[in-house]
Amino acid sequence: MNHESDPTRSLKRLFIIIGNKASTGDFNLNDLPSSGGRMDIVCRFIAQSLFISHGIRKDSGAIGVLLGEPDPPRSILVHGGKVRYMSPDERNVAGLIRKALKHRGEEWKETSPGIFTAKKSVNEILSELGDFSIFYLREDGRDIFDLSIGPEEKTVFVMGDHLGVGGDIEELILRKVRGIISVSPLSLQADQCVVLIHNFLDRLERSRNIELD
Amino acid sequence: MNHESDPTRSLKRLFIIIGNKASTGDFNLNDLPSSGGRMDIVCRFIAQSLFISHGIRKDSGAIGVLLGEPDPPRSILVHGGKVRYMSPDERNVAGLIRKALKHRGEEWKETSPGIFTAKKSVNEILSELGDFSIFYLREDGRDIFDLSIGPEEKTVFVMGDHLGVGGDIEELILRKVRGIISVSPLSLQADQCVVLIHNFLDRLERSRNIELD
Repeated sequence: MNHESDPTRSLKRLFIIIGNKASTGDFNLNDLPSSGGRMDIVCRFIAQSLFISHGIRKDSGAIGVLLGEPDPPRSILVHGGKVRYMSPDERNVAGLIRKALKHRGEEWKETSPGIFTAKKSVNEILSELGDFSIFYLREDGRDIFDLSIGPEEKTVFVMGDHLGVGGDIEELILRKVRGIISVSPLSLQADQCVVLIHNFLDRLERSRNIELD
Repeated sequence: MNHESDPTRSLKRLFIIIGNKASTGDFNLNDLPSSGGRMDIVCRFIAQSLFISHGIRKDSGAIGVLLGEPDPPRSILVHGGKVRYMSPDERNVAGLIRKALKHRGEEWKETSPGIFTAKKSVNEILSELGDFSIFYLREDGRDIFDLSIGPEEKTVFVMGDHLGVGGDIEELILRKVRGIISVSPLSLQADQCVVLIHNFLDRLERSRNIELD
């Protein structure tokens, strides 16, 4: 792939959610759960992947792989280092997704600053992430606290929405993963998993920096 | 206080956010950040305090202490064990808050199943939580991982929205706290702090249960 056209290249942490019923066409901003096919879940997922208090994680990105009607699959990527005009409320994120969905091309196309869309499945996306370690979130996975991540390692974490991940899709994902991980003794929402993964990695980086001091 | 009128009595984990500009009157559901005075933050905070995947934490509650115009302070309490008809999207939570704000009484009044409102400040609320250990979130606090919580201990965690907590209010809170804690090396949004606190307590409970087995 042409490096210029690969929006994941400068990312270090990437989060991917499968939106099983999430709209790939127009939807109503006043009814994200129903008309958007639980687009509210995708919006919270993107916001939690990128925002901290008064700022955005510039090395982080989020991808929603939308599998709802009328034109699945359709993926939306938001790049924390490039995105502009995004605020963390669901309606704002949804508005930018809705705008991106008006584009119908095959390859990544930037539809607003830092927001890209392409007609790609999760399998195609993972195939293009050769320099990332891929982790899959599942409740029976290994506790993230036991995970060893190198200081320069680029990581991507894949998970489902409220409906999980379909068996055929999961099979393709599992062929590519470095590990299956879990973040909690309870079954959590996808955006909650993102918060916990970020915290694990933030603490890891802090402890490395303290050692270097 | 009359036990029947105290909606916090059956809770074990309680989360309180100070919404510095959050509306205490009517606001537009299509513009929570601006017309609601960052009501989107309060909504995400409440949702993250209560929801897990496909369920609600019945022993948990959330309080938004709203300090915006026209009638501050006004507090909204959502009880995870009693709430009905709430879904985790911001607009749904905001609609229930908006309904509660139509009530103007001084003491806790249930305005929808599991949703209560009262004309109470954070100081008044904390004064009524005699059987809770009170923790205050601040970036310079002690790492939550170093915290020791008893198996039957009831805990409440107080934090600010994007504007933090005003000095005079903070002073009153600090007189009542068991500790000042922090959850991350970075400055996070309030709802992200809630996710991390829940995870800490969930892991603590699991390790206790494993010991008992």
